[in-house]
Amino acid sequence: MRIGALEAGGTKMVCAIGDETGTIYEQESFPTVTPEETLPQLLDYFKGKEIEALGIACFGPIDLDRDSDTYGYITTTPKTAWMNTDIAGYFANCLNVPVGFDTDVNGSLLGEVTYGQAKGLGDAVYYTIGTGVGAGVMSGGKLVHGAMHPEAGHMLLRVREDDPMPEGICPFHGACLEGMAAGPSIEKRWGKKAIEMKDDARVWDLEAYYLAQCMVTTTLMLSPKIIILGGGVMHQTQLFPLVREKTRELLNGYIKNDTVNDMDHYIVPASLHDDQGIMGCLKLGFDAV
Amino acid sequence: MRIGALEAGGTKMVCAIGDETGTIYEQESFPTVTPEETLPQLLDYFKGKEIEALGIACFGPIDLDRDSDTYGYITTTPKTAWMNTDIAGYFANCLNVPVGFDTDVNGSLLGEVTYGQAKGLGDAVYYTIGTGVGAGVMSGGKLVHGAMHPEAGHMLLRVREDDPMPEGICPFHGACLEGMAAGPSIEKRWGKKAIEMKDDARVWDLEAYYLAQCMVTTTLMLSPKIIILGGGVMHQTQLFPLVREKTRELLNGYIKNDTVNDMDHYIVPASLHDDQGIMGCLKLGFDAV
Repeated sequence: MRIGALEAGGTKMVCAIGDETGTIYEQESFPTVTPEETLPQLLDYFKGKEIEALGIACFGPIDLDRDSDTYGYITTTPKTAWMNTDIAGYFANCLNVPVGFDTDVNGSLLGEVTYGQAKGLGDAVYYTIGTGVGAGVMSGGKLVHGAMHPEAGHMLLRVREDDPMPEGICPFHGACLEGMAAGPSIEKRWGKKAIEMKDDARVWDLEAYYLAQCMVTTTLMLSPKIIILGGGVMHQTQLFPLVREKTRELLNGYIKNDTVNDMDHYIVPASLHDDQGIMGCLKLGFDAV
Repeated sequence: MRIGALEAGGTKMVCAIGDETGTIYEQESFPTVTPEETLPQLLDYFKGKEIEALGIACFGPIDLDRDSDTYGYITTTPKTAWMNTDIAGYFANCLNVPVGFDTDVNGSLLGEVTYGQAKGLGDAVYYTIGTGVGAGVMSGGKLVHGAMHPEAGHMLLRVREDDPMPEGICPFHGACLEGMAAGPSIEKRWGKKAIEMKDDARVWDLEAYYLAQCMVTTTLMLSPKIIILGGGVMHQTQLFPLVREKTRELLNGYIKNDTVNDMDHYIVPASLHDDQGIMGCLKLGFDAV
């Protein structure tokens, strides 16, 4: 089946054509400007490409409640030009194909669970640690929506005493995960970009402490079989052994489960070379048919 | 259908006979001693009662993985006499009926979702705050198991500066939710039983602060449509308005969702007069057929 894929991010829109095996035939990016300017560009990309379905993984918050009048909308986003934009409806109407729609992080998770290392694992969590922190959650083979969708990036953290920026920078919560561990927090705390501090052990030790709290809470709340960490910050691969070690310390032997305790396979990097999002869109499109 | 129900707790075993409408015909309790002494007593209760199925909601940790050799076992419990006890298998073999099996808290949740106030809500969380803290989770209409089952009672908390017992009492995690907010923690912190301090505002203000952190993390991680708080500590009903108020403060306007923000209907007491567990067992038994 020819499927269209749209990874709708706050900075850029990635469009692709592919199929349900996860093969990407072609791909193109457009800057995210305003709905009036950007949506027609994306539509032009998909028109005439003979797609039978479209999958959209979208920045948010978005409305995933099929019974809601605003299903398929971007809702209360801080990117004000995009507030109350019926992005799924726009493409469904203009392209006249079934449209699958979910959050950007659920898209990445779906890519990993369908085509990547988490294949076949119906209980999985995907975090993107970048300019913000987002989480996609699958439980029992289904993406978790619930009342809205998880917003685990804002979980509250215990602040370490030696943190030079104990107040955090989240405008809502101060020292939540996003306020302490996303890229801008690292930069603000230490006065340099994360990428320039690769060899500064105290930077990554503190970062791993906060990410480990997230791993512990995720394990205890969701009982997943795998936790995948993607996003720009996790390109600092020296973080993985540190996060695993501190997760083990914080759990302190409480969880006696082989899946969790095989930590090299439990807390892992994304496996699809940053194509997990667009591949997840292919699956979203396929599932919409 | 005549269904047997067994709510297997660490202190007592509640046995009942009822049907799939949630009607309980008769009920009897037995102390939890050892498997050798207790299991035959329970078997005697159920024998000859012409049940067509049995539902068991059991203290844990337990093995819920149907592909595991120890499915249906109580596994690594601190109640050492019950370690590695094949409780589901014992009744399946001796009674020769289908046996449904889940955690004690998932049983209570299932009772509320099937027969109580959360009827029809497929995304719900149940906490019991008593001698310990346990959590049952339903997502998309299915009880969450995953790699094991949620152990949200041990989520890490941010400790308040004025807490006279900042170290907590959980032997694994110190200041986790169970270590800070369960009945024994309250008693240890203030030197009196919770029930004797009903009018002491600082006790409940601090308790509500910790429970509110749990509400925030639950909301952000699981996106439920309702959170039900049961267990002995929650018989202090003055906690509910305090917990809601502090949850609102901690979320700080971040979640723009009517279900969550209608907090009087979002954070609620158990509704089935402490029969939610045994009623959940009836549903577990029914679903096993």
